[in-house]
Amino acid sequence: MKRNIKLIIAYDGTRYNGWQKQGNTKNTIQGKLEEVLCRLTGESIELQGSGRTDAGVHARGQTANFHTVSDIKTEHIKEYMENYLPKDIAVYSVEEVPQRFHARLLAKEKIYSYTIWNSSTPNVFERKYVYQLKEPLNIEEMKKGACYLLGEHDFKGFCSLKKYKKSTIRTIYDITIQKEGSRIVIRYRGNGFLYHMVRIMTGTLIETGLGRKPSGEIGSVLESLNRDKAGFTAPPQGLCLEQVLY
Amino acid sequence: MKRNIKLIIAYDGTRYNGWQKQGNTKNTIQGKLEEVLCRLTGESIELQGSGRTDAGVHARGQTANFHTVSDIKTEHIKEYMENYLPKDIAVYSVEEVPQRFHARLLAKEKIYSYTIWNSSTPNVFERKYVYQLKEPLNIEEMKKGACYLLGEHDFKGFCSLKKYKKSTIRTIYDITIQKEGSRIVIRYRGNGFLYHMVRIMTGTLIETGLGRKPSGEIGSVLESLNRDKAGFTAPPQGLCLEQVLY
Repeated sequence: MKRNIKLIIAYDGTRYNGWQKQGNTKNTIQGKLEEVLCRLTGESIELQGSGRTDAGVHARGQTANFHTVSDIKTEHIKEYMENYLPKDIAVYSVEEVPQRFHARLLAKEKIYSYTIWNSSTPNVFERKYVYQLKEPLNIEEMKKGACYLLGEHDFKGFCSLKKYKKSTIRTIYDITIQKEGSRIVIRYRGNGFLYHMVRIMTGTLIETGLGRKPSGEIGSVLESLNRDKAGFTAPPQGLCLEQVLY
Repeated sequence: MKRNIKLIIAYDGTRYNGWQKQGNTKNTIQGKLEEVLCRLTGESIELQGSGRTDAGVHARGQTANFHTVSDIKTEHIKEYMENYLPKDIAVYSVEEVPQRFHARLLAKEKIYSYTIWNSSTPNVFERKYVYQLKEPLNIEEMKKGACYLLGEHDFKGFCSLKKYKKSTIRTIYDITIQKEGSRIVIRYRGNGFLYHMVRIMTGTLIETGLGRKPSGEIGSVLESLNRDKAGFTAPPQGLCLEQVLY
C-alpha cells in the first residue's frame, strides 16, 4: 500500500516558469520538488499540486500530495527537502494523509493576495513581490467595485483562455483591500479561480482606483462575459497563493 | 560656483561589490550612480558617500553629495535618476545644500540595522535581507551583552583591519534588540563604525544568544582589544545602513 504525503510549500516564483511541469518546460517548481523527492525515495514521484501558478507568481501555502512506497518518516522527508531544495523554495509542512486526499480535486477554497506598492518612491527591497504603481489609487472606489465580484458568477470575462471546456462559474466569498502606508494588499477568497482570474480582477480594480473604470460598471462588465470589457491583467509578481483549504 | 547636491539613497546590495568604486572594482553602487549623473550633467561627477558598505550590504538611508556646475533642477535630477538607475537602487531625495556640506566628514551619527530570521522554517521571500539561523536565540542574554558595548570604547577588537592608522575609538549611543515572531532586528546607533564593526558586534551577540559566550564576558572581550576574542563576522545580507545624521 502506498502512503499519501501532503506538502505545504512556499516559493519565490521569480526565476521559475511557474508551478507546472509540462512537456519540455524546464525550471518549474513542481519539477524542482519532484527531482528532490525522486532522489530521496528512488521512485519516480509525481506531485499533484492544488493548481498551477504562473511564471513569476509566488506562494506561501501551495499544497500538493504524492504517493510513495517508501517508509521514510515525514520529519526526514522535510529535513532532506530543506537541505536539497534551492533557497527560493521551502517546505513548511510534510504530513501523512488518508489515501483519498487529493490536493487539486478536494480543494474547497483558495486564498490569494495581490500586493501593490502605491508610491512615487520605488521599493527596492520588495520589487519582486509587489506591483509598483506611482499614480495614487482611490481605495474606497476599489472597495465599492470589489462588491460586484462577490458571490457566484460566470467569470468567463475574467479569464485569459478563450475556450474553456469546463464551467467558468466560480464563487468568491470575500475580497478585502487593506492599505498600510504605501502598501495595498487585496485578498481574494473563493472556491476556485480561472486562468489569470485574480490578475484580471486586480487589473480591473486598479483601473477603478485610477478613475478609469467607474466602480458601478463592474457588475455589467461581469455580466457581459467579455474579456475585453474587464481591466488589464495585473503583472505576476504582486500575486501570491496564500492558502488552500480542504 | 559649483552647486552642492545631497542625495539619500536606498539599495539592495545583493548583486554589487559594495558601495565604493576602487581601482578596477566594477559593479559598485557608487559607480552606477556616478554613471547616471555623468550622463545627465555631461560632467565627470565624483560622489562622496557617508561611508562604504560591503558587498551584499543594503541601505535605506545612504547619504552622498556631489558638486556640479549644471543648473538642472533637483526634481529633474531625481526623475532622471529614477528613470535610468537599475531597479535595485533608488534615490529617495535630491536636495541642494550649502557648500560646506560633506557627506562623510560631517556625519554625526549612523544607524545600522541587522536582521536575523530565527526559525526552523526558512524565509524564502526575504532570504537576501536576513541572516537565517535555526537555533533559538536567547534575546534577554543578547540584551545584557549589548549593554557592555554602549558608550565610548576602543573597538579595535571589533574590527577586521589589523592595522588602523586612525583612532579606533567610537561611541555607541544605543543598541535595541526587538523580536517580532521569527524576526529579530538589532539596531545600532553610534558616531561611527569601524570596518566590519557592526557585523562583528552582531556575531558576538549571536554567540551570546546561543549560550556560547556569556553576556558577562563581553566587557572583557572589548577591553582585550583582541579580534580573536570577539565573535564571528555575521554575514552581510542581514545588514542595512538605515540613516546618517548630520
